[in-house]
Amino acid sequence: MSSSSSNSSNNNDDQMLKRARELGIVTAADRYRAQTPKCQFGETGICCTVCLQGPCRITKKPGMDRGVCGANADTIVARNLVRHLVFGAAGHSDHAREMVLALKGVGEGSVKDYKISDPKKLQHLAEKLGLTDAQTQDEKALALFVANKCLQDFWKYDASPCLWSQANLDAKALAKLQEIAILPSAIDREIVHILHQLNMGTDADPFNILLSGLRAGMIDFTGMSMATAVTDILFGVPYPVVTEANLGVLKKTQINIAVHGHNPLLSQVIVYAAKELHKEALEAGASEGINIVGICCTGNELLMREGITSVANYGTQELAVITGVLDAMVVDVQCINPALKEICQAFHTTLITTSPRAKMSGVMHVEFETTSALESALRITREAIASFKRRDDTLIHIPDYKAEVIGGFSVEAMLALFAKIECDHPMRVLANAISNKTIKGICAFIGCNNHRVEQDQNITTMARELAQKDVFILSTGCASGALAKAGLMSSLAVEKYAGPGLKHFLKQLEAKSTLACGLPLVFNMGACVDNSRVALLWKLLAEEMNLPLSCLPVVASSPEIMSEKALAIGCWMVAIGVPVVVSIPLPVTGSAYVTELLTTKLKDIVGGYFSIEPDPLAATKIIDGILQERILKTC
Amino acid sequence: MSSSSSNSSNNNDDQMLKRARELGIVTAADRYRAQTPKCQFGETGICCTVCLQGPCRITKKPGMDRGVCGANADTIVARNLVRHLVFGAAGHSDHAREMVLALKGVGEGSVKDYKISDPKKLQHLAEKLGLTDAQTQDEKALALFVANKCLQDFWKYDASPCLWSQANLDAKALAKLQEIAILPSAIDREIVHILHQLNMGTDADPFNILLSGLRAGMIDFTGMSMATAVTDILFGVPYPVVTEANLGVLKKTQINIAVHGHNPLLSQVIVYAAKELHKEALEAGASEGINIVGICCTGNELLMREGITSVANYGTQELAVITGVLDAMVVDVQCINPALKEICQAFHTTLITTSPRAKMSGVMHVEFETTSALESALRITREAIASFKRRDDTLIHIPDYKAEVIGGFSVEAMLALFAKIECDHPMRVLANAISNKTIKGICAFIGCNNHRVEQDQNITTMARELAQKDVFILSTGCASGALAKAGLMSSLAVEKYAGPGLKHFLKQLEAKSTLACGLPLVFNMGACVDNSRVALLWKLLAEEMNLPLSCLPVVASSPEIMSEKALAIGCWMVAIGVPVVVSIPLPVTGSAYVTELLTTKLKDIVGGYFSIEPDPLAATKIIDGILQERILKTC
Repeated sequence: MSSSSSNSSNNNDDQMLKRARELGIVTAADRYRAQTPKCQFGETGICCTVCLQGPCRITKKPGMDRGVCGANADTIVARNLVRHLVFGAAGHSDHAREMVLALKGVGEGSVKDYKISDPKKLQHLAEKLGLTDAQTQDEKALALFVANKCLQDFWKYDASPCLWSQANLDAKALAKLQEIAILPSAIDREIVHILHQLNMGTDADPFNILLSGLRAGMIDFTGMSMATAVTDILFGVPYPVVTEANLGVLKKTQINIAVHGHNPLLSQVIVYAAKELHKEALEAGASEGINIVGICCTGNELLMREGITSVANYGTQELAVITGVLDAMVVDVQCINPALKEICQAFHTTLITTSPRAKMSGVMHVEFETTSALESALRITREAIASFKRRDDTLIHIPDYKAEVIGGFSVEAMLALFAKIECDHPMRVLANAISNKTIKGICAFIGCNNHRVEQDQNITTMARELAQKDVFILSTGCASGALAKAGLMSSLAVEKYAGPGLKHFLKQLEAKSTLACGLPLVFNMGACVDNSRVALLWKLLAEEMNLPLSCLPVVASSPEIMSEKALAIGCWMVAIGVPVVVSIPLPVTGSAYVTELLTTKLKDIVGGYFSIEPDPLAATKIIDGILQERILKTC
Repeated sequence: MSSSSSNSSNNNDDQMLKRARELGIVTAADRYRAQTPKCQFGETGICCTVCLQGPCRITKKPGMDRGVCGANADTIVARNLVRHLVFGAAGHSDHAREMVLALKGVGEGSVKDYKISDPKKLQHLAEKLGLTDAQTQDEKALALFVANKCLQDFWKYDASPCLWSQANLDAKALAKLQEIAILPSAIDREIVHILHQLNMGTDADPFNILLSGLRAGMIDFTGMSMATAVTDILFGVPYPVVTEANLGVLKKTQINIAVHGHNPLLSQVIVYAAKELHKEALEAGASEGINIVGICCTGNELLMREGITSVANYGTQELAVITGVLDAMVVDVQCINPALKEICQAFHTTLITTSPRAKMSGVMHVEFETTSALESALRITREAIASFKRRDDTLIHIPDYKAEVIGGFSVEAMLALFAKIECDHPMRVLANAISNKTIKGICAFIGCNNHRVEQDQNITTMARELAQKDVFILSTGCASGALAKAGLMSSLAVEKYAGPGLKHFLKQLEAKSTLACGLPLVFNMGACVDNSRVALLWKLLAEEMNLPLSCLPVVASSPEIMSEKALAIGCWMVAIGVPVVVSIPLPVTGSAYVTELLTTKLKDIVGGYFSIEPDPLAATKIIDGILQERILKTC
C-alpha cells in the first residue's frame, strides 16, 4: 500500500485532471470554471421564479425591493431555502421507503434475493415499535410488522410525531422539538403541506416559512433514521473493517465495476453477483476476477458492511472513468453527474442506469426491482464483463496512490469498543473523555464535495487541524470519502495528526480492543443517511452526561456542502441543538433577517445554528470556539 | 346597474391605478415595471439552482453548455418545469385534503359548523366509491366512508390508479393514460417520488422528467376532482345564480368584507357569520349591514353557490383595498399578494390571515379550524365591524362600474338545462350542436392574471373573438373573474358578441329553461379546482359523441397564466388530450427539445399539447384552427 508522504494528501486528482486535459475531456472542474462568475441574485437567494410574473430580482433600487406580488427579500430567501430543504428531505425519505418496501417484500416472501441479516436488531426494533410478542414471532412476521409500522410514518393522519422522528433523540431534545412543534407526524403528507405553504401568494412570513424548514429537516431526520435501521436489518450492522480508498484501488487485472449513488439494495446485490460470476470473469481474461469499487454513498454502504474499497467520492466520480479501466459504472439515484455519459463514451466504460427515477437519454437502462434483484445484478455484471473485453489499453492510466481505511463504525461497533473499558456503561468512556478533557469534544464531518473549492481540501485540512486540537472526529457521506482517500481513516494518521489527548483516547481504546487493524484517526459512520448514527451517538452521550444535546461539546461541519439533501441534514442537526459550520456560501445572504435567524437567533430557539466560514483554518477556529463554549456552559 | 358602453370593458382599473398614484401607493403594476427587463436565463428556464455549486446558467459559450454536474439545457429546463408542476399539484391536492378532513369531521361529529348540503351527491359518491349498502346508511356514516376513501388516494401503496384519477375521464382517455403509465396511485407518495427524481444528480433524462411532469399534472387533476366533489357535498352543487362583479360592488353604506384565497371552508362560514351579525353591523352604523365580496377562487366558490359578488380577481386584489371602503381583507391560502399588508396599512382595512400555512409577519392572524369554524368567522366579522368604525371618509373612492353576472354552471346545472330539450339524453344537445356545426366547439378559459399583460385584456379580447366565431365558452378561476368583471357573463353579452350559431344555441336553451335570468355568453364553472367540472363535461361529451377526448373540438386557454397551480392544470389538460393555448412565455424556450416536446411531440403521445402565442388575436386564430382541425379529424 503506497501513501504519499506529504500530509497524507496525494496527487491522484491532479494527475487525472492533467490526463483529462491531454485527452481533451472536460471535467466538472472545467465546467465550474466556465460557470463563474456566478449570478449574484442566485448566490444570495433573492431571485424568485415561483410564478410566471417573474423572475423577480430584489435590489436596493427603488421599486425593486419587492417582487411583483410584493414578496420582499426575506420572504423570497426563506421560501427558496425551504424549497431546497423539502427536496432534500424527500430524497432521503424516499430512499428510506425503498428500503422499507424491500423489508416488506422479504416479510411477504415476494423478495427472495435479500434476507434478514440481523434478526436481533429486527426483533429489538419490533419490540421498540410496539410489538409485545416479538420473541415468539418468526422473522417474516417481524419484518412485516416493522415494515408496516415504518410505512405508517409516511402517511398516518393522527397528530402524534412519527415513530422515527422520535428515534435517536434524547428526552430533552424531544421535548424541545415538541415545544416548538416541528416534529413531523407523517413524512409524505407533511412534505405536501410544506409544498403548499411555499406556493405563490401563500406563506409570506419568513419566520413561519423557516419553521417549516426546520420541520423539513426533521422529516429528513425521520427518513434517514428509518433508512439506517432497516438497512442494518437487511444487510447487517457494520463493524470495523479494513479496506482502501482512492483511485489506486482500481486494478488493470480485474473487471472493475463502480457502483455509484445511494441505494444499497442495488450495490449490495451486485457484490453477490460478482462472487457468482467469478469464473466468467476469469474466462473473459480478468486474471484476478471482479473488483467492485464504491463511489459516493452507496460506496460508503458497501465499505461499511463489506469492506469494499472506495474509488471516489462525489467530486472525483468522473476521474474514476478517466483511468480507462472502469468497465462499468452502475448508478442508482442522487449525486450522479450527467456528465458521466459523455465521459464514459470517451472510454469503453458501460454506464448503466437502474432506477426508474434516474435515467439518462441514450444510456443503457437495466431497471432494478427488488423482486428480481439478483437477476438484474447478474445482467449488469455480465455487461461489465463484456465491456472489459473492449478495453483500450492505450487509454489506461491508474494513479498509484491509495490509502488504508479502517471503517465500519456503527454505534453498535463503538459501544462494543467502549465496552472493553466500561463493560456496563460503555458510553461512560466517551463521556469521561469529555468530562476530564482528554478530548475537547466531537466534530462530525458531513455532506458533499463542491467544485467551488479544491477537491477534499477543506475537509481534510479541517480534520487534521481539529485532530491536533484533540477533537474526536466522526464522518459520513462524501466527507468520509475525502477523509478515507486522504489516509485519515488509518491508524498511521493517529500517530501523525492526533493531539496528545485524542491520541491517548484512541490508543487506550485500541489497546483494549481485539481489533487487529488498530483504530483510525477519523471514525467513518457511513453514508449520508447514516447521519442517523451520529445522532444516535449524540443521544446516548447526552443521556450519559445528563445534559441537553444543545449543551454538549458536539458540532458538525459540512465544508463542501453541495446538495439539497445536505442542506436538509444540516437543518435537522441545527434543529436538534447542534451547531453546523459550513464553508460554502448558503444562498441566504440576500436577507439580513434570514441570515441572522440562521446564524444567530436559532441558537436561542433550538440550540443549534449555522456558521458560514469559507476559510478552513478560520472554520476550525470557530469549531474550536464552539466546543470550548459548550464545555464551559452550565446547562 | 351601470355598465360601460364601449365593448363591455370598463375604466375601473385605470381609475384605481390613478388613484393609487395620487395616494403614493405602489401597486403590482408598478412593481412589475420595476422588475423589467427580466433575466433571460430565468425567462427561458436555463438557470439551475438545484445544488450549491450553482447557479449554473446555460449559454452557447464554450464550456457553458453544461452546468457543473454536466446537466444540459434540456435536463435543466425539464427539471425546473416539473419542479413548478409538483408545487402546483401539491397546492391543489392539499386544498382537497382540507375539504376531505372537514367532511370526515362532519362524519365523526367533531365538526359541527358544516353539514351535508347535498345528501344525494354524497350517497351517489359513496356508491361510486364502492359502498354497496349506501342507501341504508345514515349521512354521517356515508360522509365517513367517502372521506376515508378519499384519504386513501393520498397514501395507498397498491399500484392501482387513485379513485379520483379515474373520475371525470372517459374510458378512452383512461386507457391512453394507463398505457403511458402516468396515472398516479397515491397523491402524497407520488409527489415525494417526483421530488426525489428531481434531486441533484438523479434524473437527467428530459423525457423521463417530463413524463413525471404529466404525472404531476394528473396528481393535480386527482386533487381537484376530489376537491370539487367534496365541496359540493358540504356546500351544495351550484346552480345558476345572478350577481355582480367588479369594484363597483363595494358599498359605502355597508361593512365590506373581502374573502380572498381558495378554501371555501373559511369563506362559506363567514357568509353564515355575516348573517348572524347583521344587527351588530346596523348598530355600528352600517345602514345596509354587511357586504361579503369575493376575490380570486374562494370568491368564485361563493359566487357559484351563494351568488356573492366578485369584487376582484388576482390582478385587481390590491385595487379593492384602495377604494377605501374595504373594512376587512380576510385571506386563506394561495395567490395572496404580500403587498396587501402595506396597502391595507395605508387605509383602515384590517388584513386577517387565517391559515397556519399562510401568515404575514405583523398581520392579524386568526387561526381557522373546522372544529371552531363559526367562532373564528364571528371573530373575524366583528374585527371588520370594528374596522368599519375607523373608516376615513376622505379616502373613499369607489368606481361606479359593475357588471351583471349569471354564474353557477356546474355540470349538474348544465345537464338540467340541456334536459329541457333532450330529457333522456341531455348531453346530446351539446353533441348535436357540435355535430351540426351550430357551434364550432368549446373553449375553456382557465387560470390567472399576470401583470405581464394588461389586466384581463387577453382573456376578454379572446373570449369576444371566439364568441363571434361561434365557440361555446366555459371559464374558471381568475379567467372567470376577468370575464365576469367585463360583463361577458351577462345575457346582454350574448346579444352583443355571440356569432349566429352560438346565439342560436344559447337562445334555444334559454327559451326552454325556466331561468328568469336568461343565459350568459360565458358559462362560469367555478374556481380553479373546478376545472374538474370542465373535465367532467368533456368526459360526458366524449362518451356521447363516442370519440376520444383528443378528437373532440375542445380546447383550453390560459391567456394570463401565472401560478404553478395553473401550470399543473394546463399540464393535465394536455395529458388528457386537450390543447392548451397560453399567452405568457413558459420558461422552457432555453431547450429546443423541451419546447418541441411540449408544443408538438406531445400531440402524438397524449393528443394534447401547449401552444404559446402572446398576441390575443393570433391566439384566437390558433384556437379556431385547433377546433377546425379537430372537428374534421377522423378518429
